[in-house]
Amino acid sequence: MSLLYALDLVGTAAFAASGAWAGIRRRMDVFGVMVLGLVTAIGGGTLRDMLLGDNPPFCFKNEIYLYLALGVSLSTFVLYRHLDTMRRPLLYFDAIGLGTFVVIGTEKALHFNLGFLGAVMMGVITATAGGITRDVLANQIPLILRKEIYASACLAGGALLVALIQMGITRSLALLIAATTVITVRLLAIHFNWALPRARD
Amino acid sequence: MSLLYALDLVGTAAFAASGAWAGIRRRMDVFGVMVLGLVTAIGGGTLRDMLLGDNPPFCFKNEIYLYLALGVSLSTFVLYRHLDTMRRPLLYFDAIGLGTFVVIGTEKALHFNLGFLGAVMMGVITATAGGITRDVLANQIPLILRKEIYASACLAGGALLVALIQMGITRSLALLIAATTVITVRLLAIHFNWALPRARD
Amino acid sequence: MSLLYALDLVGTAAFAASGAWAGIRRRMDVFGVMVLGLVTAIGGGTLRDMLLGDNPPFCFKNEIYLYLALGVSLSTFVLYRHLDTMRRPLLYFDAIGLGTFVVIGTEKALHFNLGFLGAVMMGVITATAGGITRDVLANQIPLILRKEIYASACLAGGALLVALIQMGITRSLALLIAATTVITVRLLAIHFNWALPRARD
Repeated sequence: MSLLYALDLVGTAAFAASGAWAGIRRRMDVFGVMVLGLVTAIGGGTLRDMLLGDNPPFCFKNEIYLYLALGVSLSTFVLYRHLDTMRRPLLYFDAIGLGTFVVIGTEKALHFNLGFLGAVMMGVITATAGGITRDVLANQIPLILRKEIYASACLAGGALLVALIQMGITRSLALLIAATTVITVRLLAIHFNWALPRARD
Repeated sequence: MSLLYALDLVGTAAFAASGAWAGIRRRMDVFGVMVLGLVTAIGGGTLRDMLLGDNPPFCFKNEIYLYLALGVSLSTFVLYRHLDTMRRPLLYFDAIGLGTFVVIGTEKALHFNLGFLGAVMMGVITATAGGITRDVLANQIPLILRKEIYASACLAGGALLVALIQMGITRSLALLIAATTVITVRLLAIHFNWALPRARD
Repeated sequence: MSLLYALDLVGTAAFAASGAWAGIRRRMDVFGVMVLGLVTAIGGGTLRDMLLGDNPPFCFKNEIYLYLALGVSLSTFVLYRHLDTMRRPLLYFDAIGLGTFVVIGTEKALHFNLGFLGAVMMGVITATAGGITRDVLANQIPLILRKEIYASACLAGGALLVALIQMGITRSLALLIAATTVITVRLLAIHFNWALPRARD
């Protein structure tokens, strides 16, 4: 569980950096960059908690998520000229965040007695709603709706977690397997440049 | 009530198809198309339940809405080349959804002791927030804010429902009259191409 | 407290006018203009209450906010050709709304036992989320993320309020000082055209 918490913080930081980056590219001021970083990092979990009725959302109960996201966003703003070498590592940290957020969201939803499909959806929302909000605020069609095996990895991971738990496997082991699967699929997708089919013209 | 439920499902399917269609036109992948279909179909009712504090929202309590919306979206993605003949019927199904969503939302809000204006607003939100979210995700100014007697039909239907219930008419009859009114106004608007005034340059 | 309520209503009206104005510029119909006015005026407080779990949100408990926002939006739509002389005064009323919304939001969050950073964030959300939603619906990058010392004034005001209350100053005096500070900073920013740094190309 402690490992999951550590991975959760790594993912939060990576998501914040990706949000801040998007803000910088859209020439936002320092406040806008911090808002985009924050929203990307905590938006998914916050929407999940609002849907589950678990108020106030997680990041207001444990403010470390807020401080971490704001700190990383500010650092990205200050250091962004020197961050080009970080682009590749950031993709990996982002994958860690993706896997961790999915399993945390799915598990929490099961804990709130949601059904199979609802729980998987909550996992996907936890992992993707922040990035979607980031792109909406940057006035772009959300990247995740157009490109790459990103959301599908989440979907698969959430479904796997539900299946493993229903098979009676220990919760912590199930979490670990599902998270690792998402992260692995995502890294392979980055490496081999996989994409989903889209409708032809 | 059973009739209302049937109409609700028809509307959900029609809204999902309209969302999926928007995703296909914006060249999203299959995941994006399903997200847009889902959000369009359940977004309004979900926002209503979040505002009313009825967590988790309706579609997580009765997952048939999720399965229906996802199934229709996927079918639309697969069959979209053959759906041109469906465009006219879809407008009619969409009108059914509109009328049904308005009265369901308004009635639920009254049940939660909201005031006159608040209850009508909840009806309008139930019927329109999904389509608004669809357009925001597709990076367009929401259609409903710019064109056609769409939202006004909702507004009128919600107000009519509140008035009928306050006049002491049986709830199920009031629901039926209000829903039928919205659907009829909407169909007439489609037929005669009515539009609301907008500010001149 | 009664003064704060009066300022709150002034701010609500000013925010509604700014939202309606944005809708008119984007050539929305009368319904769209009213939606934009309403969302701008009550969006921030509504999101705050959804996050705090205080359902239904404030404006459904006291519908005067709804009537005021809709009335101002409709008036703006009808009279917009004659409102050019109002542009400057509107900026001042808007500043009043900003200061009032920040302190109301921060204080309410403290009342709900949020931590330091969380409470300040709730104040900022109360003051800015409506305008952000307005810009998203108008398909623009939110102004507040790009320009002017707007959000920073909120941030400072929320932090000041928390600090004053922790110093043991009477709540009503603390509210007054913090709100006045935000309003003053905002008016100075308008006057001297201050801006935050943004990342260079």
